[in-house]
Amino acid sequence: MQTDKNNKIPCFDDVVEAYRIVRKYANLTPVHQSTSVNSILQASLFLKCENFQKVGAFKFRGASNAIFSLTEEEAKFGVTTHSSGNHAAALALAASMRGIPSYIVMPDNAPVIKKKAVEGYGAEITFCSPTQQDREATQTIIQKKTGATFVHPYNNFKVICGQGTASLELLEEYPDLDIVIAPVGGGGLLSGTLTYVKGFNPSIKVYGAEPINADDAFRSLRDQTIYPSVSPNTIADGLLTSLCELTYEIISSKCDGIFTVSEGGIVDAMRLIWERMKIIIEPSSAVPIAAIMEHPQYFKGKKVGVIISGGNVDLENLPFRAKR
Amino acid sequence: MQTDKNNKIPCFDDVVEAYRIVRKYANLTPVHQSTSVNSILQASLFLKCENFQKVGAFKFRGASNAIFSLTEEEAKFGVTTHSSGNHAAALALAASMRGIPSYIVMPDNAPVIKKKAVEGYGAEITFCSPTQQDREATQTIIQKKTGATFVHPYNNFKVICGQGTASLELLEEYPDLDIVIAPVGGGGLLSGTLTYVKGFNPSIKVYGAEPINADDAFRSLRDQTIYPSVSPNTIADGLLTSLCELTYEIISSKCDGIFTVSEGGIVDAMRLIWERMKIIIEPSSAVPIAAIMEHPQYFKGKKVGVIISGGNVDLENLPFRAKR
Repeated sequence: MQTDKNNKIPCFDDVVEAYRIVRKYANLTPVHQSTSVNSILQASLFLKCENFQKVGAFKFRGASNAIFSLTEEEAKFGVTTHSSGNHAAALALAASMRGIPSYIVMPDNAPVIKKKAVEGYGAEITFCSPTQQDREATQTIIQKKTGATFVHPYNNFKVICGQGTASLELLEEYPDLDIVIAPVGGGGLLSGTLTYVKGFNPSIKVYGAEPINADDAFRSLRDQTIYPSVSPNTIADGLLTSLCELTYEIISSKCDGIFTVSEGGIVDAMRLIWERMKIIIEPSSAVPIAAIMEHPQYFKGKKVGVIISGGNVDLENLPFRAKR
Repeated sequence: MQTDKNNKIPCFDDVVEAYRIVRKYANLTPVHQSTSVNSILQASLFLKCENFQKVGAFKFRGASNAIFSLTEEEAKFGVTTHSSGNHAAALALAASMRGIPSYIVMPDNAPVIKKKAVEGYGAEITFCSPTQQDREATQTIIQKKTGATFVHPYNNFKVICGQGTASLELLEEYPDLDIVIAPVGGGGLLSGTLTYVKGFNPSIKVYGAEPINADDAFRSLRDQTIYPSVSPNTIADGLLTSLCELTYEIISSKCDGIFTVSEGGIVDAMRLIWERMKIIIEPSSAVPIAAIMEHPQYFKGKKVGVIISGGNVDLENLPFRAKR
C-alpha cells in the first residue's frame, strides 16, 4: 500500500482549516430538494450538488487542498496520481491553476468524458489496465521518472480534509439534518464527511453506500480487515477502488453503517433524480439514493443530507431502457 | 383562432401584479452560470433554470396565474386546454392545487414523460392528432361537454403575465444584463419576457429563437402576417405551435429579432449544457443556446440572460450519438 508522508487521522478543525483554501478555488455548490422525490422516498432529502463542482465532482475539493498546501519545494516537479477519472481531472485542473505540471495514470476503460477532461486540463496521461495493482505499479514508474509529488486519490490527509468541506457547506446551510449519506469507493469522501459531520454533531448518523457488486468496504468493516476490490462489476465506475489504511481507520471508528445496493437499484435511482430533479448525476452518485430506496426503514421521515459526488457520464452510453 | 375573454396587451405592472400570485405557488428558480460554457461561447450566460420549476417547465407560472385568477364562478366546472405537454401538466397541477378538475387535449405524439406527468396530476386526457386544427376542434368539443373554462396555452393575458415572472426574478438577481433570449413557439414566454424586460429597461435587447424547421414566427414578423406552423419537423417538441393575435402583437412591436437555428445546432447546444453544466434541458430550451452558437456576432462579450424553458425529455429517446 502506497502512503503519503505525514498522513494522520484528521479532526474537525482540520476540515475547517482546509476550507480556508478550498473556498478560494472551489464552487460553493447548491443544495437541491424535490417535493416529488421526497414524496416517493418518504424522507426529506437535501442533495449537496457536487455535480456542479469544478470538473463536475467533489474531487476538486481534495485536490485543490492538496495542491495548494504543497510547499514550493514539493510542487517544483509537479504532481502525479492514479485515478479512474474524477480525481485525475481535479488534480490536473488544480495543478494548472497553480501553474505546475501533472502526470496522470488512468485505467484504459475510464469513460471518454473523463479522459477528455483530463487532457483538456493539460495533464500528461499514461494508461494502465484497470486493476489496483497495475495502477499503483505504473504510477510508481511515472513518479520516479518525473520527480513529481504523488497525491493519492484518498489515502492522503489533505485530500480527505478537502472532501470534508462539502459537508461543512451542507451543514452550514442545513444544520439540523438527522442523517448524512455518501458513496464509498476508496473512502476519501466518506472519511471527510465523517470527520466533519461527527465533529459538528455526533448524533447525526453518517452512512456509506456502495454497490453490492463492489462491496469491499462493507465486508472490510464487517470482518475488521481491509479487503481489496477484486474485479468489481458495477456501473458505478467511481467506486471501483478499495479502502486504504487511513480511510479504513476513520470509517471503521466513526461510520454508522455501510449499505449495499443492487445494479438495478442504481439505475432506477439515477433515473429518478434525472427525471424528477433535472440534474445529471453519475451512477456513483445514485448509489446513496439507491440505498434510501432499498433500505427505507433507516430513512423514513428523516432529514437526509446526500452527497451527490459528481455528474460525469458518457451521454452516448446511458443505462436507460424503455419501461412502460 | 380561439381567444379568451378580456384579452388585452399586458404591461410591466401586470407582470408585477401576476408575481403576487405566482410567487405563492411556483418555485423561485436558480440562475446557473458556467465558466467553461462562457469560454466556449465567448459571452457571459445567465441561465434562468425553469427546468427546476414545478412540472419541469416555465409553463407553471402562466398556468398558476391563470387558475388562481379565476372567479369561483369561472372555476366551478374546472379548466380545459390543448397542449403538447408542459402547459397541460402545469394546468393540471395548478388545477389540482386549487381543487378543481382539468380536461386536457393532447397530441398523440407527445413525449411519454409528458403524458405520464399530466395523468399523474389527475387530469382527464383526450388525445388528438398533432395539428393545430385538430387540437382546437377537439378542445372545443371537450369544452362544450364539460362546461370547463378554457385556458389557452399562450393567447391569454394571465398566462402571458405569469410567464413574464421568470424574467422578473432573473432581473431582480442580475439587473445589468445586455440581452435576454427565450425560445418562441406560440410566443407566450417571449411575450411575457418582452413585457417585463422592456418595461424594466428598454435598452436591454430581447430576442426570440426558434428552429429553422419551425420558423413561422420569423416569417410572420418578416412578412407582418401570422403564418400557421404547418407540419413542423423539429426535435424541439415544445415549439410546434404558431403565434396568435396577442403574442404577434406584443412580439412584433417589442422584439429585437428572431434567430433561427439548425436541428444539429439544437442537439449540439443541448449536449453542451448537459455535459458542462450537468443540468437536463429539453430540446426547446437548447434553441436559444443554439442561437448564441450559430449567431455569435450578436452575443460576443455580452451578458446574456437565457430563459431555460424546461427539462422534460424522454430518457429512452435521447439524440446523443458518438462523436470522436
